[in-house]
Amino acid sequence: MAGVMIHRTRVSHDWIDYNGHLRDAYYALIVSAATDALMDRLQLDAAYRERTHCTLYTLEMHLNFLREIQERDTVTVAVRVLGADPKRLHVAFELSREGADEPAATAEVLLLHVAQMPKVSAAPFPPEVSAAISALKDETAGMASAGPLSRRMELTRR
Amino acid sequence: MAGVMIHRTRVSHDWIDYNGHLRDAYYALIVSAATDALMDRLQLDAAYRERTHCTLYTLEMHLNFLREIQERDTVTVAVRVLGADPKRLHVAFELSREGADEPAATAEVLLLHVAQMPKVSAAPFPPEVSAAISALKDETAGMASAGPLSRRMELTRR
Repeated sequence: MAGVMIHRTRVSHDWIDYNGHLRDAYYALIVSAATDALMDRLQLDAAYRERTHCTLYTLEMHLNFLREIQERDTVTVAVRVLGADPKRLHVAFELSREGADEPAATAEVLLLHVAQMPKVSAAPFPPEVSAAISALKDETAGMASAGPLSRRMELTRR
Repeated sequence: MAGVMIHRTRVSHDWIDYNGHLRDAYYALIVSAATDALMDRLQLDAAYRERTHCTLYTLEMHLNFLREIQERDTVTVAVRVLGADPKRLHVAFELSREGADEPAATAEVLLLHVAQMPKVSAAPFPPEVSAAISALKDETAGMASAGPLSRRMELTRR
């Protein structure tokens, strides 16, 4: 698995669609929960959000669906930090079914650090969060992805 | 609104996150429901799926989050067909809060027509579905997007 393990979840019955597998949007929900776990790791946790009124807003999410996930599956998520600037964070997630060798999905997410009060506006990360981001980037940025990266979507001959 | 109106939904209380707005993954769930509505329009409805054991699988989804959506909002979704080949369909969605001028999100989705039996494999669209896709493409492909398109995600100076 490419990245640092950040999240693990059972697939809920409610997430299965009429095709008999995990609905596309619930891959996104697993990515969203993995982002919450990443925030905890980067000291952007609930206590931080309550104290500072700062949080992360998602700017973009790009999902690649590689393999079906079934109701009986447990999904694990690994994260890599691809880039960061003073206010933004670019991360990659890899979703795998426990017991399977190949990833079930890859995702990239672009996140913005935001102060919600007095009005919603972009805000720089505090130094300790920047340091935590840098440390995780150093640990993971060089790891090769096991699946496709974000791209401009288009139909080309395969 | 750029595209043909395809879906309309109230925002559920359960979709609101700790930031007090629609959680990113539930934008994806609205896009997923809009895709179902699009399938109905293209004659890929439940009766078709039951009769043929064919359906659409999502290959990629790219979401751009432009504005916050609140619990009180009703969201409308417009669709454009950007491209198609014998087995795949590339569409763009625009999500708007009813009563607001600017879109709240844009999304692009790449879909594959699949036969689920005897084993899961890509399959060509039947002629009447291809015709319906072509008709919707002719109607919508030239409409300009009101928001950003899919792209290779990266941090660049803004």
